[in-house]
Amino acid sequence: MRASYINDLEEWKDGFGFAVPVTVRFSETDMFGHLNNTVPFTYFEFARTEYFKHLGLMQCWLERDSGTIPVVADLQCDYAKQVYFDEELHIHVKAENVGRSSVDIHYMATDRQGTVCLTGRGTIVQMAKATGKSEPWAEADKELFGLAEQAVG
Amino acid sequence: MRASYINDLEEWKDGFGFAVPVTVRFSETDMFGHLNNTVPFTYFEFARTEYFKHLGLMQCWLERDSGTIPVVADLQCDYAKQVYFDEELHIHVKAENVGRSSVDIHYMATDRQGTVCLTGRGTIVQMAKATGKSEPWAEADKELFGLAEQAVG
Amino acid sequence: MRASYINDLEEWKDGFGFAVPVTVRFSETDMFGHLNNTVPFTYFEFARTEYFKHLGLMQCWLERDSGTIPVVADLQCDYAKQVYFDEELHIHVKAENVGRSSVDIHYMATDRQGTVCLTGRGTIVQMAKATGKSEPWAEADKELFGLAEQAVG
Amino acid sequence: MRASYINDLEEWKDGFGFAVPVTVRFSETDMFGHLNNTVPFTYFEFARTEYFKHLGLMQCWLERDSGTIPVVADLQCDYAKQVYFDEELHIHVKAENVGRSSVDIHYMATDRQGTVCLTGRGTIVQMAKATGKSEPWAEADKELFGLAEQAVG
Repeated sequence: MRASYINDLEEWKDGFGFAVPVTVRFSETDMFGHLNNTVPFTYFEFARTEYFKHLGLMQCWLERDSGTIPVVADLQCDYAKQVYFDEELHIHVKAENVGRSSVDIHYMATDRQGTVCLTGRGTIVQMAKATGKSEPWAEADKELFGLAEQAVG
Repeated sequence: MRASYINDLEEWKDGFGFAVPVTVRFSETDMFGHLNNTVPFTYFEFARTEYFKHLGLMQCWLERDSGTIPVVADLQCDYAKQVYFDEELHIHVKAENVGRSSVDIHYMATDRQGTVCLTGRGTIVQMAKATGKSEPWAEADKELFGLAEQAVG
Repeated sequence: MRASYINDLEEWKDGFGFAVPVTVRFSETDMFGHLNNTVPFTYFEFARTEYFKHLGLMQCWLERDSGTIPVVADLQCDYAKQVYFDEELHIHVKAENVGRSSVDIHYMATDRQGTVCLTGRGTIVQMAKATGKSEPWAEADKELFGLAEQAVG
Repeated sequence: MRASYINDLEEWKDGFGFAVPVTVRFSETDMFGHLNNTVPFTYFEFARTEYFKHLGLMQCWLERDSGTIPVVADLQCDYAKQVYFDEELHIHVKAENVGRSSVDIHYMATDRQGTVCLTGRGTIVQMAKATGKSEPWAEADKELFGLAEQAVG
């Protein structure tokens, strides 16, 4: 597990406290017979939006008169183990670092045996719709991540 | 070619006057080694939006203060011939029937040899954003389809 | 509900006896703010493969030395009600008519309130890999559909 | 442009010598009105397979009796600028480092004005189908990348 964003693997794995299940769809495979490499990013997004719903953040961003939306600044995935049709994965999510207007989200996909198949990370930035510029978190939002981090720590 | 929306196949084929090229992406194949059955609908949508751009309709619907959007009421595809990675298809589009607030769009995908691989159709309805109800075409819009039909007829 | 494949809507709805849940992913929406029209076909495929697994057919087709695969001959969807991000749908599936080497599969998506959002149908043909030609069902396979139909009837 | 895989931006940009055009499809947008964050990876894959075809590698991997396939070991994308429906992008590809059985591929998406919208990279490993283990490049393959690098250098 050579990903640069993982120092101690066991510690990193223990840091996750939220996960959602996904089943690999037939349409998500490719002619090499496995999960296509582009699909884990849709799993990451699904897990991230469920996590943001869990924190209560997603609801605010989806309101019609919300002045801000979350945007993905960067995203990466390491493919540790091939994944196949019909596998049941758990996509784990955690907030790793909270900045002024951004947050680093980490991802881990495990199969039924608990084996790590995918790991990943990416920065989410809160953006003001009107200006397209980054918008600092409210203190209450930062605390949401903080509590989440405590809950999983 | 048993599709109920095709009476005379040669005549039906001759009716098309607009087409866009697409190349089958690797991520659009599945573990059975061919184009996944869900993907032709993305080709149909791409061809349809290019056709609506060609007619000048798409631009209006995309304006922020547009009161209407086009919605898909129904959609169908007949798979005449298996399609594989890297094939270059042409997706042909035509308006077949124009109603009060709707239009029937027909689709045909041909390969490099001109063989028909996919056929399809579906009704598009112009919907008022505010009410969610169908919004009659302006006479000028109907003429766009009419001219288009003439041009291809 | 004008779909030509539905005679009596209530009777048609009562005929379903198998369903799988799906949650609308953010990546499945489009800039018009709702579920993109191309996505229901991925839900249909997911529900169909789960149904074929339930019947025990999918496992055979996936074996490396299986001489046959199921292919989609045609597919259609009627969009009864707009669907949005984060909605929890149930995708219902049933076999409606079993032919010599094909089966007609019907689909219905309902939301949390039980409202029908999407309906659809399509023919699946069992194809011999070697020849690309249709391969008749074994009698035991036909009975699977029969039992399934009885179970839901 | 903070991506860790870019030292000198201008030099890095000048290193690209191969590109393919893509047009943003409507189905690739999301309800925030822009290109969904999961889609650039399908653009990267498309550009990469076109590049491998250009080098003559893809054809070998696709042969039925090929003992090897390319697998994605990791993949990342930096979103430099929001991208919208109907934009015409060029996806540039280059091989950056060639290892014993792997190659680092870099990606850059530019819009009509030449502005960089997306950058990315990822390692491709040649894998033996039978064992699932990495398979060293033939010297001729390495030269393909070498020539390609010279051609673009």
